[in-house]
Amino acid sequence: MSHFDIQTRDPSSRARTGTLKLAHGEVRTPAFVPLATKAVVKTLEVREAAELGFDMVLGNTFHLFLTPGHELIAQLGGLHRFMGWKRPVITDSGGFQVFSMGHGTVADEIKGRAAQAASAGERAGAILKIEEEGVTFRSYLDGSTQFMGPETSMEVQAALGSDIALVFDECTPFHGGREYTARSTERTHRWLDRCLDWHAQSGPEGQIVYGIVQGGVEEDLRRWSAQEVAARKVDGIAIGGTLGEHKDQMFEVVDWALQELDEARPRHLLGIGEIDDLVRGVELGIDTFDCAMPTRIGRHGMAVVPDPGHRWRVDLAKARYRTVDEPLLEGCPCPACAHGYSRAYLHYLLKAREQTAQRLLTIHNLAYLQRLMAELREAIDAGRLAETAAAIRGGAFY
Amino acid sequence: MSHFDIQTRDPSSRARTGTLKLAHGEVRTPAFVPLATKAVVKTLEVREAAELGFDMVLGNTFHLFLTPGHELIAQLGGLHRFMGWKRPVITDSGGFQVFSMGHGTVADEIKGRAAQAASAGERAGAILKIEEEGVTFRSYLDGSTQFMGPETSMEVQAALGSDIALVFDECTPFHGGREYTARSTERTHRWLDRCLDWHAQSGPEGQIVYGIVQGGVEEDLRRWSAQEVAARKVDGIAIGGTLGEHKDQMFEVVDWALQELDEARPRHLLGIGEIDDLVRGVELGIDTFDCAMPTRIGRHGMAVVPDPGHRWRVDLAKARYRTVDEPLLEGCPCPACAHGYSRAYLHYLLKAREQTAQRLLTIHNLAYLQRLMAELREAIDAGRLAETAAAIRGGAFY
Repeated sequence: MSHFDIQTRDPSSRARTGTLKLAHGEVRTPAFVPLATKAVVKTLEVREAAELGFDMVLGNTFHLFLTPGHELIAQLGGLHRFMGWKRPVITDSGGFQVFSMGHGTVADEIKGRAAQAASAGERAGAILKIEEEGVTFRSYLDGSTQFMGPETSMEVQAALGSDIALVFDECTPFHGGREYTARSTERTHRWLDRCLDWHAQSGPEGQIVYGIVQGGVEEDLRRWSAQEVAARKVDGIAIGGTLGEHKDQMFEVVDWALQELDEARPRHLLGIGEIDDLVRGVELGIDTFDCAMPTRIGRHGMAVVPDPGHRWRVDLAKARYRTVDEPLLEGCPCPACAHGYSRAYLHYLLKAREQTAQRLLTIHNLAYLQRLMAELREAIDAGRLAETAAAIRGGAFY
Repeated sequence: MSHFDIQTRDPSSRARTGTLKLAHGEVRTPAFVPLATKAVVKTLEVREAAELGFDMVLGNTFHLFLTPGHELIAQLGGLHRFMGWKRPVITDSGGFQVFSMGHGTVADEIKGRAAQAASAGERAGAILKIEEEGVTFRSYLDGSTQFMGPETSMEVQAALGSDIALVFDECTPFHGGREYTARSTERTHRWLDRCLDWHAQSGPEGQIVYGIVQGGVEEDLRRWSAQEVAARKVDGIAIGGTLGEHKDQMFEVVDWALQELDEARPRHLLGIGEIDDLVRGVELGIDTFDCAMPTRIGRHGMAVVPDPGHRWRVDLAKARYRTVDEPLLEGCPCPACAHGYSRAYLHYLLKAREQTAQRLLTIHNLAYLQRLMAELREAIDAGRLAETAAAIRGGAFY
């Protein structure tokens, strides 16, 4: 049985709408997937993501493995019950987090996931050994020595009971060089087979598995990795790793990978979620995205606004907002804006270090992304994606 | 016109139910008043206090005077609009906060308000001079020299636009001695007159004023202060200052004051909100209470539970809750408990320093106090306060 139905194909691009049919329900695509990295959408209850209209959240294998531990979560009824979320969950494999400890600052170059990693504190951890078997590392929590390999990652994700498990991969550094990237990508393919073997034997009922395309930023390696992953019996395909130094390179790299994939299976783009990137990813045929952006910038006092000239964001901590008696975003229907808080109030709360500010901005940012994705889905279904994409890029979408 | 209607008097005690009729609506009494000290109920939106059933919140003159400033709040439409709250607001005068900087650690002895003061950071400030005119102090925010006297306090409260203003008082230290307490209380009475004079001239339409009884812990001084305050044209009377070292002394002191007051005007007990204290205060005829307890202990990982043997609280950060698959409080109808989070999940969130834990506990604690006060009101109206009070004291109220 297929886990993914394609509904409408856009005539002007490779965009499509569809439905992921997962153990805990359906996900309308293209979709943005908010992070519930540590079994919570930071500053919110996870269930509030459903109130905002999201169908799926992303949990993190690495963090939950370290604390509170997958055994405990399993004992407490699995990740869904633990965090009070009834809809689908996708779990990242932990590969990115494990390797971002070792590849350190290079991670800064890849898709902004570094700030997420740094704020989570992984930098205090360290990779001790990368071997064929897996990775030995020092926990950022207590300095203990830990091991994670393909089987460990799948075992953790099985215990968590996610709807979609991602295979364990090495997220290669941008400056690793062709030689290292080729060897690493080849090992990632061997790990992919081990993940699929483990899952075939021991995977939980109803959980599906996505492979991850690596291969760095060189065309032949990236295409080769996409072919290798597509050749396996994976239920979907995620594109991960180093995608380049700037957006044009990033989408060139993503496009190489997508050209090697069949149409039928769903595609996830890991760690990408800027407004313009979402539009471009949808046009290229990406079905789901996850990114720390909306939640992370919210915690740093920033709100998503339709302002392409300022990266679609406004920094409310700036002194100029101290006296501004205007709403965060005029006409915005989100629960935070609906109550009419002024920019001056949000500025004040941020300066007073009141958590409520971070919460309100997180709600606004997630709501904006949810509306954006709903608008893109509607546009594809209505055959007017080109106009909608142009309007969003022009800052006309609220 | 009277601002306070008494509805039912309990035959077995001095408890009464009533209604405060204020500029922004009615307050059913006896009532607990959550703190919105800095124009926010910490970890929540202020409006959520209404969803929890509260009629009034308390804002703080001292903090809002320092930041963002009462002029700015007035310019932005007043405190209600600034923080998105449509119901009544009572503002503390700032006296407690100003003097807790100078009287320092003695504040620890008075009613737990010290922890509130400390967490707000006032200790970094300092009193520079106490004079007949008022108090000169150093701001805890930026070290600047600031002045607050009776007129300043009333002016700030006028600009904030609260429904009930409290007069500016000196909160005398427990170890100040009889001589100091007598002189200080006499000055507080002179400040009361100045507050009332200012308000008669310049107070905003619809704002009513409560006097504050001081007088320390000696019977004659406390009774004298109550008589002096009661003799003024105040709309209500708050009991403040040092109330003693232990609960029996505290309520003896409160009782002396109450015995000197007329029945007609509403009485507020400042900074008191432990479960057993609320019951006892209600029995003595207190109409409204404010206290940092429910919000503060929530932020410190504690939940209010019907457990008189452990001060009606449970510390979820304790290791013993790591694996406990039970709700915070079985059968509790509060929005946090209704979603079924386990103690293990709350423990985990606290350990992971996720704000969501503090928010959930704050919601639970406030909801508990709101239900408790509603139960007390219902019991008084039904003529069964004695049974209800006994049940609450016995830990039978959920």
